[in-house]
Amino acid sequence: MDKKTIMIALGGNSLSPKGSSGTVGEQFSFTRRTMEHLSEFILEDYNICITHGNGPQVGNELLRMDLTNDVVPPLPLGICVANTQGQIGYMVQQTLQNKLRDLEVDREVVTLVTQVLVDKNDKSIKNPSKFVGARYTKREIDKLAKKLNWIVKEQEPGSWRRVVPSPMPEYIMHGKSIKALVDRGSIVIAFGGGGIPVFNNDNGQIEGLDAVIDKDFSAAKMGRIIRAQELWIISDIDYLYSNFNTENARPIKEIGTKELHSLHHQNIFQEGTIKPKIKAALHFLKHHGDKVVITSIDKIKLAIDKKSGTIIRN
Amino acid sequence: MDKKTIMIALGGNSLSPKGSSGTVGEQFSFTRRTMEHLSEFILEDYNICITHGNGPQVGNELLRMDLTNDVVPPLPLGICVANTQGQIGYMVQQTLQNKLRDLEVDREVVTLVTQVLVDKNDKSIKNPSKFVGARYTKREIDKLAKKLNWIVKEQEPGSWRRVVPSPMPEYIMHGKSIKALVDRGSIVIAFGGGGIPVFNNDNGQIEGLDAVIDKDFSAAKMGRIIRAQELWIISDIDYLYSNFNTENARPIKEIGTKELHSLHHQNIFQEGTIKPKIKAALHFLKHHGDKVVITSIDKIKLAIDKKSGTIIRN
Repeated sequence: MDKKTIMIALGGNSLSPKGSSGTVGEQFSFTRRTMEHLSEFILEDYNICITHGNGPQVGNELLRMDLTNDVVPPLPLGICVANTQGQIGYMVQQTLQNKLRDLEVDREVVTLVTQVLVDKNDKSIKNPSKFVGARYTKREIDKLAKKLNWIVKEQEPGSWRRVVPSPMPEYIMHGKSIKALVDRGSIVIAFGGGGIPVFNNDNGQIEGLDAVIDKDFSAAKMGRIIRAQELWIISDIDYLYSNFNTENARPIKEIGTKELHSLHHQNIFQEGTIKPKIKAALHFLKHHGDKVVITSIDKIKLAIDKKSGTIIRN
Repeated sequence: MDKKTIMIALGGNSLSPKGSSGTVGEQFSFTRRTMEHLSEFILEDYNICITHGNGPQVGNELLRMDLTNDVVPPLPLGICVANTQGQIGYMVQQTLQNKLRDLEVDREVVTLVTQVLVDKNDKSIKNPSKFVGARYTKREIDKLAKKLNWIVKEQEPGSWRRVVPSPMPEYIMHGKSIKALVDRGSIVIAFGGGGIPVFNNDNGQIEGLDAVIDKDFSAAKMGRIIRAQELWIISDIDYLYSNFNTENARPIKEIGTKELHSLHHQNIFQEGTIKPKIKAALHFLKHHGDKVVITSIDKIKLAIDKKSGTIIRN
């Protein structure tokens, strides 16, 4: 029988402490804990592709640029994403390699620097609304916005941040190479942070874009390219909940796409955090995928044994 | 007949203006010029693996850390190398993809974040001598050295810099994955900046090291893994010269390894710049390689036609 192939999307908080800027030591220790749990999939001998968020790390990069742009030429957001793909990819792959040594499993772990193509007419490009980078007062941010050509918005009263577009991923580049690696048994880390956003410009050339792509939807797209049977979306929530934040909150243990689709349209799920995961799950299951699991890091083993997490099937 | 496989090592100055900190616009324009020349190898339909220096880019990263470490947790040098692999890999691959579109060639270009294993007993680790990062006065650097645990040296009178080890690469990790990609026709960018230095610690685990690895020697090692016939070392020198910097300076057009070995031992080549290239060339030709070419960016086409560059053969 052919091996099972699995696509794993790790939330940014799996790799860096929530709400903290995170020293490298802390980041490695969070990453080790997460890889400990992921090793369940290695023991099951799955073919594996992993993606990950990059919020805390790209936040640090952006803050360094804000503070030093008078002295060192700053890098645009797209290139900062590429930087964090290198940085996080290295940390994840090294941690996983050490885990593989412990398990005496001989597999390579590689990180691919991955661009993701978006539609240059995506409506979010004209209406950027995704907050990135540090918080500033109005006076502070006006100065930066003028110098660095930012669009800015007030997130909470008195707290201003830069906003960028969050276009939908259209096409994950380098898909054939990633599939070839996954098929040969290499564990592949790719399109971290959702991927480096690029678009086809009017000259038919690929060009970078300062934007942020949803990593769960990129994972759903990639899952189809590598013909994964399963997509695991791992973050800090252990289940999808119906009636979330009410007395009647109830974890959803198993649900079909039809019912999920209808709940999704009833707007019972949270904008920004849960809704994108559901969109990704439905996209993955629409064409090829067999099963989506939404769970938290600590519950992976339980979820493999079907004792935790939300399972979504056609 | 099987396709020819070629390993290309690009000097850092191929991608960023010499002696300048380089805005992203300048870096892209340098990269475009270089990829224009590299496209000769695509027209010859070679299998291709590319590595590159990262001096100017890692210098900028380090300077940002120096300036912001009071506010943002700084990243160690090894992780800065990983960052620049992401950053430069992205710029090179996008530029090359656009060139491939112009040429109507359908090949993927991918960047792998690559670790390189060094011997933890390498003598350079106890005697760091490779200058990295910004220049400071004695007083400025003493403060940073104390805080960030640096070893420092005076490079020129009054001008102090951090020094790190420059161990020899022992083993390029992820070699099988890289070979699989090169063999399937993907153009692979890997182990930028010589690779992220790691070593096997006493617990048998892989651990990062703040050091810098010579990219030309890593390229010679990688050339053997992918069974490349040719290694091209491309920098700002168009030839090896005998009697360099004298009235009798004479470009070496073709030379055998035996003669080169003997010249190398006569110490006629410059320490630090030329000698490592010769060491790399001799290593590559010792086991499998067929030909090494040392040339400059602008002379690639001429060198392919054997009208420029130094050709070294067994």
